[in-house]
Amino acid sequence: METINKYIEENKDRFLEDLFGLLRIPSISSLAEHKPDMHKAAEYWKETLLKAGADKAEIFETKGNPVTYGEKIIDPSLPTVLVYSHMDVMPVDPIEKWNTNPFEPEVRDGKIWARGADDDKGQGMMHAKAFELMVKTNTLPCNVKFMIEGEEEIGSPNLGKWCEENVDMLKADVILVSDTSMIAADIPSITTGLRGLAYWQVEVTGPSRDLHSGIFGGTVANPINVLCSMIDKMVDGKGKITIPGFYDDVMEVSAEERELLGRAPFNEAEYKKAIEVEELTGEKGFTPNERTGIRPSFDVCGIWGGYTGEGAKTVLPSKAFAKISTRLVPNQDHIKIAELFKNHFESIAPKSVKVEVSSLHGGQGYVCPIDIPAYQAAEKAYNDVYGKRPVPFRSGGSIPIISTFEEVLGVKSVLMGFGLESDAIHSPNENYPLEQFFSGIKTIPLFYKYFAELSK
Amino acid sequence: METINKYIEENKDRFLEDLFGLLRIPSISSLAEHKPDMHKAAEYWKETLLKAGADKAEIFETKGNPVTYGEKIIDPSLPTVLVYSHMDVMPVDPIEKWNTNPFEPEVRDGKIWARGADDDKGQGMMHAKAFELMVKTNTLPCNVKFMIEGEEEIGSPNLGKWCEENVDMLKADVILVSDTSMIAADIPSITTGLRGLAYWQVEVTGPSRDLHSGIFGGTVANPINVLCSMIDKMVDGKGKITIPGFYDDVMEVSAEERELLGRAPFNEAEYKKAIEVEELTGEKGFTPNERTGIRPSFDVCGIWGGYTGEGAKTVLPSKAFAKISTRLVPNQDHIKIAELFKNHFESIAPKSVKVEVSSLHGGQGYVCPIDIPAYQAAEKAYNDVYGKRPVPFRSGGSIPIISTFEEVLGVKSVLMGFGLESDAIHSPNENYPLEQFFSGIKTIPLFYKYFAELSK
Repeated sequence: METINKYIEENKDRFLEDLFGLLRIPSISSLAEHKPDMHKAAEYWKETLLKAGADKAEIFETKGNPVTYGEKIIDPSLPTVLVYSHMDVMPVDPIEKWNTNPFEPEVRDGKIWARGADDDKGQGMMHAKAFELMVKTNTLPCNVKFMIEGEEEIGSPNLGKWCEENVDMLKADVILVSDTSMIAADIPSITTGLRGLAYWQVEVTGPSRDLHSGIFGGTVANPINVLCSMIDKMVDGKGKITIPGFYDDVMEVSAEERELLGRAPFNEAEYKKAIEVEELTGEKGFTPNERTGIRPSFDVCGIWGGYTGEGAKTVLPSKAFAKISTRLVPNQDHIKIAELFKNHFESIAPKSVKVEVSSLHGGQGYVCPIDIPAYQAAEKAYNDVYGKRPVPFRSGGSIPIISTFEEVLGVKSVLMGFGLESDAIHSPNENYPLEQFFSGIKTIPLFYKYFAELSK
Repeated sequence: METINKYIEENKDRFLEDLFGLLRIPSISSLAEHKPDMHKAAEYWKETLLKAGADKAEIFETKGNPVTYGEKIIDPSLPTVLVYSHMDVMPVDPIEKWNTNPFEPEVRDGKIWARGADDDKGQGMMHAKAFELMVKTNTLPCNVKFMIEGEEEIGSPNLGKWCEENVDMLKADVILVSDTSMIAADIPSITTGLRGLAYWQVEVTGPSRDLHSGIFGGTVANPINVLCSMIDKMVDGKGKITIPGFYDDVMEVSAEERELLGRAPFNEAEYKKAIEVEELTGEKGFTPNERTGIRPSFDVCGIWGGYTGEGAKTVLPSKAFAKISTRLVPNQDHIKIAELFKNHFESIAPKSVKVEVSSLHGGQGYVCPIDIPAYQAAEKAYNDVYGKRPVPFRSGGSIPIISTFEEVLGVKSVLMGFGLESDAIHSPNENYPLEQFFSGIKTIPLFYKYFAELSK
C-alpha cells in the first residue's frame, strides 16, 4: 500500500495530463463525422500502454472502429487479467447545458469535467496507470492484457466477432472492467448484474406530405397523435410492458435474493432530490432498486415530428419518429425481444398510417457470481482502500459486450466500477471526482495481488 | 367581360412580375429574424396599391408587424368594399422537401411555385390587379379600401386592436377576402364557414437533467413516455376530444343543413389517393367533410424531446415538448377553450413530472349567411367566369381575424377563395395555378359590378 501511495503521489499530475490528452479527443462513436477521432483515440491508447510498460501494443481494424490491444506476459504459469475499456463516448447534446467545453477537460471543485471523464476514459485510464505503477515498482503479480474498443456506446457491433477471431490472444482468467458506478463515495459496491438492451427507431407516416391542419384536421390521421397513442399502449397502468411474450424469459428473482438486494442502502428522499422529481414511478410491486436492477424497463429516448421551431405553425405533419429502448434482465434474449417489439408495434398500427420499425442495437444481460476468486479479490481490494466491504449490486445499465465475452471467451467479468451517480454520464456536465480516480488507481493493484494469491 | 379579358391579356406578364417581386420577400411572420422582411413586404404592397390607382396608401406600425392600408373613394354615396389580405407567409421547413427555392418563384407546368404563391400573396395580388383593371378601364363601381396585414399566420395578434383604432377609416359595406380554396378547379365554391383555433405549447419536465436510461429507467418517469400518454388521453376511442366542457358550446348542425352540406361532391378514393393514405379516421358518426367542416379536431402539430440525432443514444431525457392545436367550430370561444385545455392537461399530469402549458394563439370561428347581397354578388361573379353556380362550403381552416372584423367593424366578410387543395399551402412546394390567378382577376371586377347593383 505504501509503495502504491508513494508512486501515485509522485506521478499524480502526469496521470491527469495523460487522461486529459485522451479526453480532448472527441471520439463520439454514434456520429460518423467523428470517425477520424476514433483512430486518434486508438493511437493514444496504444502509446499509453507502451509507455506504461506493455511488451507490445497494436491497433486492430474492424468493420467499424478500431480496437487497441496491448499485453505484458511476465510468466505464462501466472494468472492472466484481461482489462476491458472503451475509448468512445456519447454525443454531447444538448450542448447548451454544458458549463464548459465537453472536450476541454478542467479540474474544478475536486472533479474532472469533460465528456468521458468517467465513462469510460477516466475509468479506463485508471487501469493503464495502475498497470504502469505495478510495472515500474516491480509488483506486477499477473500477466496483463488490455483490449480497448471504440464502439461500446453504440452496442459493440464488431467486438464480438473480433474476439472470436482472436480467442487465443485473449486467453485470460478474468476480465476486469471499470465502467460502472459505486452506490456512493462512502458505500463501495461491485456490480454483479447488468441489464440487457434492445433499441429501435420507429417511423410513422400519415399523409405523404405535411397538410394544413385546418383543412384536413379531424379526418386524416395525424402521425404524431398516432405515435403517442401507440407508445402509450406499450406500458399498462401497472407499469408492465404489454408486448406479448415480453416477460416469458424473465428470471423471477427469489424472495431471499430480493431480501439481500434490499439491504443495499437507498434513500428515496435523497434520490429524488438529486434528480429533482417529486415522485418515483414504475412497475407495481417492486422497489425502485428492483425496478432498475432486476426488472425490464421501457423508455422513449427521443421523439420528433412536425413543426418544432419558434411560434405556432398549424400543420398536420406527414411523419413522426421515435427512438425507443427497453432494458432487459438476464435470460431475456435481445434478438428475440427486438423481433417481438417490431411485430407487436407494427401489428397495432391503425390502417390510417404506415409504421416501420428498425432495430438499432441490442445486448444481453449479465450476472457475476459472488463466490469466484476474482470477485473475492475485488471485494478485498475495495475493503483495503475504502475501509468497508463492498456491497454486491445489480445495476440497471447495460454493457452488452460483457455477456458476449462470457459466450465467446468463456471468461467471467468483474465489474470494478468507481463512478458515482453524480458523475452525470451520458448527460451534460459529465464529471469524475479526483478522489475516485486516484482511489481506483490504488484499488486495482490490490486486486491483482489478491487475485494472484487466491488463484494459487 | 370583354374589357376585363382584354386588359388582363395585355398586362399578363407584368401582373406576374409584380407578384414575383412580392414572393421574393421571405416574410415569415413566425420567425423573428424575418422582421425586416415584413417591412419590405409592407412597402411593396404600398407601392403596388399606389401604382394600381389608390388615392393614398400608408404603412401603419403596430406592436407587431406593420399593416398596409390604401383606398380609393370615388363617391361616398356608393357602397364600399374593404379588401383584406395578408403579406406574411408560413415557415418553409422541411426545406429539403422543396424542389425549388421557396423564395425564388418560377412558372412550371402552368403553375407558380413559391411559398405564398397561393396563401396569400397570390390571392392578395389578384385583388390589387383587379382594382387596377377597374381603375384603368374606368369601370370601378364602388369605393375600395385595402388592408394588408403581416401577422395572419401567427393569429393576427395586433390587427383587432388596429381595427378598433381605425374604425372610421375602415368603414365598409362588405369585407372581401381571398384566402381560401375552391372544392376543385371545375367546382367553384365559396367558403361560408371557418373553424376557430386554439394552439398551445406544452412542456413536460421529468428529472432535472438527462439521465442514463439504464441506471434510472424503470423508476424515474420519462417525460416523453408521459407526454405521449397525456396526448393519447385527449381523444377517446370514438374520436371525441375528452377535455371536460370542450363540446359545451358546439352548435350541433341540423339534419337539414347536414343534408345540404352533404351535397358537396366528395370522392373519398381520390381524396385518399391525393395524400396517399389508406384509410381516413376521425369522430364516429360524421362524414369526412363534416369532421373538417362542422366538428372540432385535435392535432399535435409538432413534438420533440430527447435524442433525435443519428444512431442509438440511450437516454432518459429531462424534457419533452409538443405544439398542440384544436380547430374549433362557430360558437366555441377560443379563449375559454384555451383555459379548459390548460387546466385539464395540467390536472392529468402525474406527480412524477411537471407540466407547463402556454397558449400560443387562437381565433374564433365564423359563418357567412348565403342570403346577403355580398354573397349573392360573389355567387353571380363565379357563375359568369366558371359557368357554374358555386357551392357554399364549410372549410376546416381558420382565419381568426374574420370573426374579429365582424365584432369590431360590424361587417360580414365574403370569402372568395381561388386556391386549390393541390396548392400545398403551409407545405413544401406550395404552388398556384396561373389559371386560378387570372380567373380570380376576372371574377373580382364582376363581384364589384353585381355588388354595386344589388346594393342599390
